[in-house]
Amino acid sequence: MAKYNALYAQSGGVTAVINATACGVIQTARHYSNQIETLIAARNGIIGVLTEDLIDTSRESDEDIAGLRYTPSGAFGSCRHKLGSLEKNRAQYERLIEVFSVHNIRYFFYNGGGDSQDTAYKISQISQILGYPMTCIGIPKTIDNDLPFTDNSPGFGSVAKYVATSIREAGLDVASMASSSTKLFILEVMGRHTGWIAAASGLASEQDGDAPHLILFPEIAFEPERFLERVQQCTKKFGYCTIVTSEGIRNQDGTFIAESGLVDAFGHKQLGGVAPVLAKLIKDRFGYKYHWALADYLQRSARHIASKTDVEQAYALGKTAVEFALAGKNAVMPIIVRESNHPYSWSIGEAPLEKTANVEVTLPTHYITPDGFHITEKCREYLRPLILGEDYPPYKDGLPHYTKLKNSALAKKLEKTFEL
Amino acid sequence: MAKYNALYAQSGGVTAVINATACGVIQTARHYSNQIETLIAARNGIIGVLTEDLIDTSRESDEDIAGLRYTPSGAFGSCRHKLGSLEKNRAQYERLIEVFSVHNIRYFFYNGGGDSQDTAYKISQISQILGYPMTCIGIPKTIDNDLPFTDNSPGFGSVAKYVATSIREAGLDVASMASSSTKLFILEVMGRHTGWIAAASGLASEQDGDAPHLILFPEIAFEPERFLERVQQCTKKFGYCTIVTSEGIRNQDGTFIAESGLVDAFGHKQLGGVAPVLAKLIKDRFGYKYHWALADYLQRSARHIASKTDVEQAYALGKTAVEFALAGKNAVMPIIVRESNHPYSWSIGEAPLEKTANVEVTLPTHYITPDGFHITEKCREYLRPLILGEDYPPYKDGLPHYTKLKNSALAKKLEKTFEL
Repeated sequence: MAKYNALYAQSGGVTAVINATACGVIQTARHYSNQIETLIAARNGIIGVLTEDLIDTSRESDEDIAGLRYTPSGAFGSCRHKLGSLEKNRAQYERLIEVFSVHNIRYFFYNGGGDSQDTAYKISQISQILGYPMTCIGIPKTIDNDLPFTDNSPGFGSVAKYVATSIREAGLDVASMASSSTKLFILEVMGRHTGWIAAASGLASEQDGDAPHLILFPEIAFEPERFLERVQQCTKKFGYCTIVTSEGIRNQDGTFIAESGLVDAFGHKQLGGVAPVLAKLIKDRFGYKYHWALADYLQRSARHIASKTDVEQAYALGKTAVEFALAGKNAVMPIIVRESNHPYSWSIGEAPLEKTANVEVTLPTHYITPDGFHITEKCREYLRPLILGEDYPPYKDGLPHYTKLKNSALAKKLEKTFEL
Repeated sequence: MAKYNALYAQSGGVTAVINATACGVIQTARHYSNQIETLIAARNGIIGVLTEDLIDTSRESDEDIAGLRYTPSGAFGSCRHKLGSLEKNRAQYERLIEVFSVHNIRYFFYNGGGDSQDTAYKISQISQILGYPMTCIGIPKTIDNDLPFTDNSPGFGSVAKYVATSIREAGLDVASMASSSTKLFILEVMGRHTGWIAAASGLASEQDGDAPHLILFPEIAFEPERFLERVQQCTKKFGYCTIVTSEGIRNQDGTFIAESGLVDAFGHKQLGGVAPVLAKLIKDRFGYKYHWALADYLQRSARHIASKTDVEQAYALGKTAVEFALAGKNAVMPIIVRESNHPYSWSIGEAPLEKTANVEVTLPTHYITPDGFHITEKCREYLRPLILGEDYPPYKDGLPHYTKLKNSALAKKLEKTFEL
């Protein structure tokens, strides 16, 4: 049986566990060395394929590949490059085939979110339309948890654990300061279009009065007066108020709150985060002393507090992707299927890439309380298992010891370069 | 031998380990129950003493008191109230004595930073000046690490571990995004007057090219052109640039950078953090896509990634404070004494409160590299031991399980109330 090479690439915003998926892919490819010659990685996602900027992962030790399981972010680099349609960008696809062909690549694994699954789908069509024999498997990844078919997306569970832990901790802090100092704390989390991450913070609140007291979702139009009323009620009742807001909350007219307030010294609008705009709104009305935090990349790279469930699922999806390819499947994405909540169990299923690409799943209405400011018990039931378990990285000298790969370049074989 | 009650209170900004000190105080007081009747806590620091808002900690189970060791923030509430001078505020001091006296309190433990040690010192003078027999021990605590005499302050080691871990993780994230997206990341950390916390982030950088690439300290006047030049050099060399900045960096004329840029829609100056001001400065010059994070309270409450060394020292200082009091010491503060760096060892010494109050220790010049943008090997040697070891809290349902005390109020005995 002829052996071919496989290519793996990472795409879109990275996560705390996307390298656990890489670990699953590479370890499984090594296991099936009778069928896969070399696992090649593309540097910076599909850009690395187009520019023939490839990495020979066989130069990495087993130990370093195992270390990927504990290492956040994208070990081979990621990108936000989208492939155009085959009809209008034929030269791009011909270039891809040139690179695949000259490097004997017949398996392609693309690890990313919705946009990236669109790229994976397009590449999966190469064999049918352009006649190059290619097996393409998409592997889900997104902290936003907005992919269809899969019960949840790798990367989300760890962000969820981070934001719920962080608001619990900061909530205790504010509670102890509130009598003579800070009465208001706002944590801004990611989520431009969907409120999954903000929702996850709600898990920290188990009893009446626990942080977060209010959650703001992009799915719910922001009404300043209703919001201010609730902040005041909360502060009167508990002595302080903690809020988690999605970065993407909008006014009734659809404009982002984050864009509504600040201008720089020259009068230009300044996207400075939604948290300071809300803090100022509250301060101006009630005079409460406030603090706010913007977690930004900290939340999605926080491997030190990753969810064990998330790590295991990320790894399993990488492993299964290779098994799918070797079983002759094409144009599919392995997905997480929830089998039961009590006790939590899951298995791996599959979904067609064609229907996965460019679909964005928002928070269902019945996951948000009727007042729009918190999560329902149904939502908790869904979220709870995803943050279960701790999976600490090794530490050296007091800091997480993350793996740095050599990322040795594979020798280029094509004379032509390619301009993006 | 007559038995008296002891009072413990928390003051100033809280930390991830101030409750470990409370745990040390209470467990040790319980151990010496032949000499200390009841360990009373004041709600919200010295305010709780003035208003006779006291907590009977004997109502808490041994298990819950043990849980304080794992619980961030101030379990009894904190405050930012300063006592005025004895000469001008005699009524306050007479009130304190009334409360102490009616509750049979002869030991006072005040747990806080520089301002709080000033309060502790004033109370320690009560016996001498006002004739009330009081033994007062200050217990150090501050994330800012700016107290004199003590080698380091409890709370700092855990923030140090948090910021170094966070910039290491976020740095890996930016590295993987930089080729086609984010090239600049700025993490803003606490430190209004001193750069200890920002300096600690430098521990994450072990090899040339590791994050953080640049560190900005309040001790060094900010020079935009020199800074921009370094940012550009770094981005050209490594493909991206990560920066950690103290909130308190200033222009040459002494004004805060955080106050220099943004105004709200009404033209009012907006203190929105220094990170967005720096990001905009760089974006305007070089056009780099940027992200920034503001850790705020998350950094000082992050018990989930506390330094084991920090927790152990915080506990030991609480324990020793009680032992000092029972040994008849007054007006002193137990401190950390560094015995050796390799291997790290420490012991507990003492310092007079009189000389401790209101002194702020800044980062020594030889801890900052000559260019002003990073830390020296001497600084690393000092910082490294403080973040050593992990001390994870217990988890329940995927989240840290922190202890909530009952905080039962002690019955008031005074008829008079007191207005602050």
